[in-house]
This record gives sequence, structure tokens and C-alpha cells, in this order.
Amino acid sequence: MDSPDQSLLQKLAASRIAIEAIEPVVDEGRFAAKTIVGHAFRVEADIFCDGHEILAASLLCRRRGEESWRELPMRHLVNDHWRATVVFEEVGHHEFKIASWVDLFAIWRMDTAKKHEAGQKVSLELQEGRLLAEKALSVRTGGTSNDRSALKTLLAELTSSPSEGDALAVLTSDDMAVLMRRLGTRTNLTETDKAFPVFVDREKAGCSAWYELMPRSQSGSPDRHGTFDDVIARLPYVRDLGFDVLYFPPIHPIGSTNRKGRNNSLTAEPGDPGCPYAIGSEKGGHDALHPELSTFEDFARLVQAAREHGLEIALDFAVQCSPDHPWIKQHPQWFDWRADGTIKFAENPPKKYEDIVDIHFYSRDAIPGLWYALRDIVLFWLKRGVRLFRVDNPHTKPLPFWEWMVEEVRQVDPGVVFLAEAFTRPKMMKRLAKVGFSQSYSYFTWRNTKRELTEYLTELTREECRHYMRPNFFVNTPDINPVYLQTGGRPGFQVRLFLAATLGTNYGVYSGFELCEAAAIRAWDWGRPGNIKADIAFVNRLRRENPALQQFTNLKFYNAWNDSILYYGKHTDDLASFLLFAVNVDPHHPQGAQFEVPMWEFGLPDDAAIEAEDLVTGQPFTWTGKIQHMFLDPCQRPYMAWRLIPPGAWQ
Amino acid sequence: MDSPDQSLLQKLAASRIAIEAIEPVVDEGRFAAKTIVGHAFRVEADIFCDGHEILAASLLCRRRGEESWRELPMRHLVNDHWRATVVFEEVGHHEFKIASWVDLFAIWRMDTAKKHEAGQKVSLELQEGRLLAEKALSVRTGGTSNDRSALKTLLAELTSSPSEGDALAVLTSDDMAVLMRRLGTRTNLTETDKAFPVFVDREKAGCSAWYELMPRSQSGSPDRHGTFDDVIARLPYVRDLGFDVLYFPPIHPIGSTNRKGRNNSLTAEPGDPGCPYAIGSEKGGHDALHPELSTFEDFARLVQAAREHGLEIALDFAVQCSPDHPWIKQHPQWFDWRADGTIKFAENPPKKYEDIVDIHFYSRDAIPGLWYALRDIVLFWLKRGVRLFRVDNPHTKPLPFWEWMVEEVRQVDPGVVFLAEAFTRPKMMKRLAKVGFSQSYSYFTWRNTKRELTEYLTELTREECRHYMRPNFFVNTPDINPVYLQTGGRPGFQVRLFLAATLGTNYGVYSGFELCEAAAIRAWDWGRPGNIKADIAFVNRLRRENPALQQFTNLKFYNAWNDSILYYGKHTDDLASFLLFAVNVDPHHPQGAQFEVPMWEFGLPDDAAIEAEDLVTGQPFTWTGKIQHMFLDPCQRPYMAWRLIPPGAWQ
Repeated sequence: MDSPDQSLLQKLAASRIAIEAIEPVVDEGRFAAKTIVGHAFRVEADIFCDGHEILAASLLCRRRGEESWRELPMRHLVNDHWRATVVFEEVGHHEFKIASWVDLFAIWRMDTAKKHEAGQKVSLELQEGRLLAEKALSVRTGGTSNDRSALKTLLAELTSSPSEGDALAVLTSDDMAVLMRRLGTRTNLTETDKAFPVFVDREKAGCSAWYELMPRSQSGSPDRHGTFDDVIARLPYVRDLGFDVLYFPPIHPIGSTNRKGRNNSLTAEPGDPGCPYAIGSEKGGHDALHPELSTFEDFARLVQAAREHGLEIALDFAVQCSPDHPWIKQHPQWFDWRADGTIKFAENPPKKYEDIVDIHFYSRDAIPGLWYALRDIVLFWLKRGVRLFRVDNPHTKPLPFWEWMVEEVRQVDPGVVFLAEAFTRPKMMKRLAKVGFSQSYSYFTWRNTKRELTEYLTELTREECRHYMRPNFFVNTPDINPVYLQTGGRPGFQVRLFLAATLGTNYGVYSGFELCEAAAIRAWDWGRPGNIKADIAFVNRLRRENPALQQFTNLKFYNAWNDSILYYGKHTDDLASFLLFAVNVDPHHPQGAQFEVPMWEFGLPDDAAIEAEDLVTGQPFTWTGKIQHMFLDPCQRPYMAWRLIPPGAWQ
Repeated sequence: MDSPDQSLLQKLAASRIAIEAIEPVVDEGRFAAKTIVGHAFRVEADIFCDGHEILAASLLCRRRGEESWRELPMRHLVNDHWRATVVFEEVGHHEFKIASWVDLFAIWRMDTAKKHEAGQKVSLELQEGRLLAEKALSVRTGGTSNDRSALKTLLAELTSSPSEGDALAVLTSDDMAVLMRRLGTRTNLTETDKAFPVFVDREKAGCSAWYELMPRSQSGSPDRHGTFDDVIARLPYVRDLGFDVLYFPPIHPIGSTNRKGRNNSLTAEPGDPGCPYAIGSEKGGHDALHPELSTFEDFARLVQAAREHGLEIALDFAVQCSPDHPWIKQHPQWFDWRADGTIKFAENPPKKYEDIVDIHFYSRDAIPGLWYALRDIVLFWLKRGVRLFRVDNPHTKPLPFWEWMVEEVRQVDPGVVFLAEAFTRPKMMKRLAKVGFSQSYSYFTWRNTKRELTEYLTELTREECRHYMRPNFFVNTPDINPVYLQTGGRPGFQVRLFLAATLGTNYGVYSGFELCEAAAIRAWDWGRPGNIKADIAFVNRLRRENPALQQFTNLKFYNAWNDSILYYGKHTDDLASFLLFAVNVDPHHPQGAQFEVPMWEFGLPDDAAIEAEDLVTGQPFTWTGKIQHMFLDPCQRPYMAWRLIPPGAWQ
């Protein structure tokens, strides 16, 4: 019997080495894994082949579209598992693949050493080792010309030295091994059959503190509509709290047809401003400004002023229209029309939302016309200096639209950050992150107990989603006033703030939160007693000053023996930045606990002493012994923050 | 800005529905998932799309190479997770894919019912529902012509009945829903972008009891070389023990160069038979019979006689040669030659195996010449009635070779079963199963304690490897005489037998095991006292008579509060076959334990009564209450086996 396809056999045989369980790979490479520019990106895989061969492996990386690959050696850890770490220096699309080969010289070296140690004759082995080295010189595989010169010099020593012992010493030397690792023939070279995508985001995608503010409510008076100049006047306040993103709900014209009144009433009184999510009027749509807020010139000044205060503006992108949106007349085919010829309002039967009509992404002419128009809205604001978009309810719009749109925008500016405001089912939340959203709303808002927080954060930082989903821990939203905040008083607000800002690298608050209020009021007294502005400024300063807090997946939970005390730490790989946090999640009672100072992370014994700093008071002190005790009274302060100082690093 | 690739946009947009986390899929479909002909094969996936759409989904299956697909509806379970179960009726390659679409009529039905219940007017909705039904008739999607007639009849009722209530009743009826599920337009139809392979094996690949026997040792006398007729005479013995596979180590000519003597001594005495794994002499190689064992005619009689005793012959396939193998002269380029012109013997430095030379799979002319020759060896024995191959040390031969060879053989007979005798690192063991081996040697041989067995069996039956790896639990091998057997006495042998045969669906023993001996002796007294032949016959009968024991992944561990008592059960999906087992893994001491009778599996309360049968004594009895007590004295019998009788099924 002859095989019908010998070329297939040849191709198959060429993949002698198994390279599998590659991480991070999202859905077989269908989606990109994510990382941050300048951060360590770790690639791991199982690599092995038949027999007792010794393998070598390399990680190959490049920007998408580049010709040549950058090669980094991978290191065998244990049980056929290999690792390499790369740092991407540019924002944008990258890719990686893995190559592995049989290192015949390493095998020869190990076997020859064993035989020699067992007292066996190795003269034939020496001859064979030398042939391998000579072949390396004749076949150019890798290494530099310096490497080749060095190898030639070593081989010359062999020619001049007739003694078997000398030849053995030269051929099995470490120098020889290093050179042959670089220059040796790559026998049975096997590569992954595809490259895996990585998207490298700018720093802000991975670490950001958001403050929401409704521009029209910034006049300081319930009787006057706020303007961008009012917002500019508020910038020092937001800067002093330590935030770095200032987010506005929609700032576009609001429809008047079926406008909702106060408290969501069905009919608006004259002068009621309407819901800012009912976008569009005769004054324009998503690319227009609400006339009372001011002009594009004012907006440009605001963007610039914010920048000077260390703040980036984030805009809302809400894909829905009021019945007065210009598109309805210009492009009726982008909307749903009913059998009686009327437009279809948004609804969730039996509820009706008659101040909003949904766009239909698959209606006549929607592809490409509508899709282009929506993309162009984002590009419109990008041109006006906005590089952060909070996308409203993306889970009610098609996934392929987001995948395409985000990619289109990144062609123009790979640094644009999209936050998915999707409070929905878990798989949809994850898929939105896969298709390209840089940050995601999360279930943090509803996780209150030690157990809930531990389980959820373990999922987010340890499971596969850590490769593509970056949660943004909002403590509240205008729609959501969690029971915990309603009942926890001031300590409840402190707890949720501290958890959001230290468990999460991305987090956010809606204005009013700092006053321990969640009601929607137009004009706050921003200095009123009982506020937690000092806590906010403190935790935002910690986040800026400590690199450990700028990473998400480095979170570790440690033991504190009290079910109301969540105790955790974050540290950089080199341990230079090492923070510990404890939070009493019971806002009503003082709680105490014995807890473990993680001496072992520094290789210290349980009875060691370690220097630390109380970050709230700035007080340095020494912990002696692993087991310590803490006491957290919510009336005083429901959290603790310490910095551990690596032995020998005390300044 | 205009998009450069509008067709890409169209294509992307066409995949509105996310279909992910598909199981069983092995390495993205690079390898086939495995199942057994006639068994239930369960496919699951996460399926969802944006918004609040109602989806429908289908599993599509076919034999590889067929044109048309068989379609089965998938069912939504919870949290966007869907399932369908299919039974493949033929051995060989199959494939499946998944399709999903938006079911507009189902959405219409739900929304309209909600509006009607809320007292809203639905006349416009009725008009829209009717349009959907009429469209289904005009666009042929699925369903039969009977379905279409039935739908037409229902629509005719609408024409004749002017009342809104009647129209609502017809359009929201269950009949209408069923018809529209079949006939309705498949909006946003999305399919997985590839089909996933499934290999359907015959029953023996999934459930088999192996008995090893060395033909040359079957003469009943240490002085005479056994023949196939001696083996034929032993068949009733093996059948009475209840085995169904009779496996022989290599039966080929043995080399004389560097032949090993008794107890692995380096020089053979005259008359020493040599190691059967040193295959090949001037009498022939892998396609020849050892002359003293007899002829191919005898072999044919043996195969036939075995079949009549309910036994299938399994042969050893050992890819290595003695220095006298004919291939060395015929095809010197298939072997490794050293710098001094001598052939390279097998070695594991500093150990040398000079009675064996290894084949080199990547040497000159090995591809395709050598690969074809090896494949043809298997086909040679297949022609002579052998459909089971125990492959010796497959982990020291290239993975691509096995993948290709197994596939080639399956082109001729998809029912050929390959058992990988690979005691090696875990990832290589799993990869061999992926590339095509039907069964795999496992670490069972070294897992003795309750904890070890629970962890290992949980991995094998719950983790991803369950989709492609079928372990074969050998209790011993000629190389391996586990400490547990050396020290556990007769109860030790009973324990290991019982565990292997009830935890595993595939298991095996080497002859002598039934005598509680592991020494290699040529002529046993097969009836000697202290044997465990009755235990073997008992457990093999249980395996044959109880369908629950013919499945592997249905294993469940239950609670018995004693760390020496392993307590577990197996049942069919319908609970009709429900077995419980308890084993005292401490061969030296009696052990007792309270344990839980799994009343909950039958939906019974903890204080219920359930009928059971002691399978050892055949005694029926009743357990009242979930908590019971057992006592296992290894001197009596270290195991228990019970059958639970589902309420109402007592005969």
C-alpha cells in the first residue's frame, strides 16, 4: 500500500516537537491577549518530544506586519513547562510564536560526561562532538560573527592538543556549551503553526482612577444650566482628590419628543432637561454639543485645562437616539419600522422607553453605512482630543460591530481606550473584553463579603480572563446605589473606596460619592462635614507612588483569621514595592484578627523581624514574628495599609 | 475615512452570535475527541449574542467526508450554556459543528404575551406575528412538508377568524411555536468556523480486560519451548477467569548477537532464549514468527480458537531491532552509524543495551521508506486477524510517526486498537493519546492510597484528558513489581485487582498475578492454594453484566469516613445500573467506616429506604437512612460491591 500523500507525511514529520498549552492565548488566537507597554509579558508553553532528547526553545516576537522577529531564549522550568518574558516598548498590535529544536550538542555533552564519569572510553565520542562543532561552523543558524570566531578558536585548540583529557575539557566546557547553544544546528526545528496576537495598550488602559461629573450640574446652582467653564472651575477639586480621568455622561443635544420628566416621570415639565441618553434633536446628534453647555471652542479649552490638571477627559458613547435625532430623517433605513409605518421605540415588554429609539445594526443599508457613521462619531471626538470612551450598554449592540469599530479606531490611534459599561451575564462581559474593550465594568459593585471578594478577585486575577479582561471597579453608578452603601454609613463608603482602589488598578466613583451620598442632586456642598475626601486623596496617592499598585494580577490574599477582615498584598516581581492592606468589611462593628506577615515572600523564617511602614501615619516600625494582631474600628478607620521594606533596603 | 475591506466587514458582521468554550474539543480541533460506538456523546458550548434575543441552536454531525449533516437541536441549560447529545452508530472518523440563530418568532411570542398580560393593546403585534409566519412559509429553512402544511392550516384559521382573542390564541399557541422553531427564518445564522473531529472507536477500545501470557512459557515444563498449541490449550483457563483480551509479548525471531542471559546477565548461556524484545535474526524480523513457536498456520488456528473462547489476541509492536535484524543489511540507512563506522547500540549512558539497536526515524531515507515499512508490519498482522496492538515504549519514537501510522491503519480498519505502553512524563502520555492511541498505560500502578487514587482518578475522569485518553490500569508488568504487591500479601493483590477492574474500564494483569506472585517463572502451578482466581472471575463477571461498569467517566467518589477506605460508585445516566464499591486499601488491618448511601442520586430524602444487593453473596437487603456502617477485614475480603435498585424497579 502506497500512501497517497507523501508531502503530507513530510510536513507532519517536520513537527517532531510538541508545543502546546501556550499562554497567553485567547480562544486559539482568535482574539489578542493584552498587556501594557513597558510591563513584563510572560509567555509559557509545554514543549517536549520523544525520547530523552534535550530541547532548546525560543520566543519570537514582533509588531504585527513587521518582517523580522526578535528572538528570546525560553527557559525550562519543570515537567516540560517553559517560560520567557518580553517587554513590549510600543503601543499597538504585536504577535508571538514559539520555536523549539533538538540540541544535539547538549545531548552529546551530557552523555559523554556520564560515560567519562563511569570510567568508559570516550575517544569516539570526542570525535563525534568535534564533528558537531565543525558542522555548526559550516551551517549558519544563529549567533554573531564573534560567536563564530570564538568557536573557531576553541576548535583550533583541539587541533593543537592531542591529549584526550584536554580535548574532553575543551569540548565539554561551559564556553563551548554557550557557543553551541547559539550556533549549533537546529535539528528538528519545530514552530507553532501560527503566531498569536498581543495588543499592547498604553498605561492608562491598565491603571486609571475615574471621577464622573455631569457638566450641566456644575453651575453651583440648581437654577442655572452648567457650562464647560463651570467644569473648568471644578478641575482643581478633582485633581486634588487625585483622580486622573474625568468622565462626562453624554454632552449632546437632548430630544424633546416624549422627553422624560424628573424622577423618570413620563411627561416633562417645561424646563426639564431630559435624560442625556436621549441623544439628538434638531440641534444635532452624536457629533454635536448640547447648546447650553457651550461651544467646541469651550470644549477644546476644557480638554486642554484638564490636561494641565493631570486629567484626561472620557466621553460617553451611547448608541441610541431620541426620536428627534437627525439620522431618523436622513437614514430611516437604520431604524426599525413597524407594520403600521411607525418607528419602533426601545422597550423591554411590558416597559416602553418612548424617548429613545434603538438603532438596528442589521437593517437595510446598516452595513456599511451605519457602521461607518458610528465609527466616525468616535473618530470625530478623537480628533477633538478625547482618547477615552465609556461605552454605554455595549452588550445590547452586536459583538462584531465592536470588534470592527475598535480595530478601525486603533488604526488611527492605538492608544484609544474603551470602557465597556456592560452589567450583564458573565460570558458576554468577557466576550466584550475579548473583542477589544480595554476596560470592563465588573460585578465588584455587588461583591461585599470577604468570601465574595476573595472568590471574585481570584477569578479575575488567576483564571484565563486575566489575559484579556481588565475590570474597572466602580463603587457606584447613577443607576446603582448598592445596599451596602445605603446601610453602611460613612465607614461603608470608606470600605468600598479602599477596596476598589487597592484591589483594582482601574476604579471609579460618581460625583457625590466623596460626600457619602448617592442621591442625584444638582448642587452639592462639596465641603460638607463627614466627607471622605481625605481617604480618596490618600488612596490615590498610594496608587501613584507605589508600582505594586499599578499591577492587577499580582494580588495575593493572605491569612487573617476573621471572616470580616479581608487581608491582601501586592508586590512587584523584585519585591522592591510590597504593600499590605487590611479592610474590615463590616461597617458596623470593630473587628480584630491575628494575621500572617508574609515573611516567606522574602525567604525569611517565621520568627524573623521585618521593617515596615504604616502608610496612613507614615510611622516606621518592626514586625517580629510572622503572627501579628490587628484591630479595625470602622468609627476610626476601617482599613490599614502597610509597606514592607525588603531586608537590606531600609533607607 | 473609508474602510479598505468592506467584504471583511460583511463577513465579520455575519457572525453575530458567539459560540465558544465548545466541548469536547482537543487542542482547538487539532486532534479528535474520542467516543465509543453506540454511547452517548455530549457536546456543550456557550452560545449567546447581544441584546435580549432568544436564540436557537443545533448540533450538526456527520461521518468525515460525507456531504450532508445530521441536525440535532441543542438545549439551553443555564448561564448561556447549551448541550446536545448524539449517538454515533458507526466506527471511524466523524465531525461536528454548531449553528445558532436568532429566533425572531420566539421573541415576538414572549414579548406579545407580556404585553397582553399587562393589558396593553397587541393588534399591531398580531399583524407582525402573522407576517413572521407567512415569511417562514415563503423562505424554506428546515422542517418537513407536513410542517409546512400544518403551518398553512394554522394561518388559514387566522384568515377565517376576525377576533383578536382568537388570533392571539392561535399565534401564541404551543403548536405554532413548535412549527416556527422548525420553519422560522434563521436570522443571523452563525456557524462555528470549522468542524471538530471525533473518532468513534469500537467497544473494545473503551472496555477491555487484558491477560498477558508469554507463549514460549506455556509448555507446562521449564525444559520445553512453548508452542501456539500450548497456548490454545490454555484458552479455557483464561476464558474462565473472564478476560477478553489475550496479549503476547513479541513472538518474532530473537537475535543472537550480544544476546542477554538469564536475569539480564550480559552473556547468554547456550540455550538461553534471549529477550523477546531483541527482535530479528537471520530467520526474519517483525513479520516473522519465532521458529520454535510454530507456523503461521498454527497462528491462524490460535486466533480462531481464541475468538471461540471470547478472546481477542493482542500483539506487541516494539520498534527496535536486534543486531541481527534483516533490515540492518537491507536498509543500513535506517539506523545510526558512528564516526568509526560501527552501528550505534541502544544506550542510556552510562548503561548500554548491546542486544538492541534503535531505528532512526529521521535518518536518510527513513521518510517515507522506514515509515512505510513499519506501517506495513502492523498491516501484515492485521491481515492475520490481529486488531489489538500493545505498542512498546511509544514515547521514545516520534509523535508524528504515530499520528501518521495510526491514521494509515485506520484507513484500512478503523476498529484497530492501539495501547500505548508509555510509562513516562505526564504530558507525553497525554499527547500520545491525542495523536491516536486508543488506550494508555497510566500511573495507576503507583497510586495506592485513598488520596492518591482519588486525585488521580478525578484528573482522569473530570479534566480535559477525559475527552481523548483512556487509561488501561495494569496491576503489574514484568518490569514493575510494585512495593504494594511485594508487601501486601494476598489482600494486596485482591485490592489492586478490584481497584483496577472497577475504577478502570480497561485493565490488565500479567500471568502469575492470579497466584499472588510477580516473579518470572516459566512453569506455574495454576491451581495452587491462595490464588485469587475466584476474585478475578467475580469482578470480570460484574464488568460484563453491569452497563455502569462499561463507562469510565461516570465514576463518583462518595463519603466514607476512614482514610483507608475508598468508596465510590458508577451508574448509567438513567440510574438503572447503579453500583457501589468499597475497598480497604490497607492490606494489613481491618478497617471500619460510616458511609453515605447516595440516596440523593435518586431524589430520595436522607431517611429513605432503598433496596440493594450484596453482589458478592447475591443477598438482597434494604438500607434505611443515608448513614450506614461497613467493616472490611482484609483477611476475609478487602472489598465490597453493592447494586442499588432504583425505587420501583425491584423485580
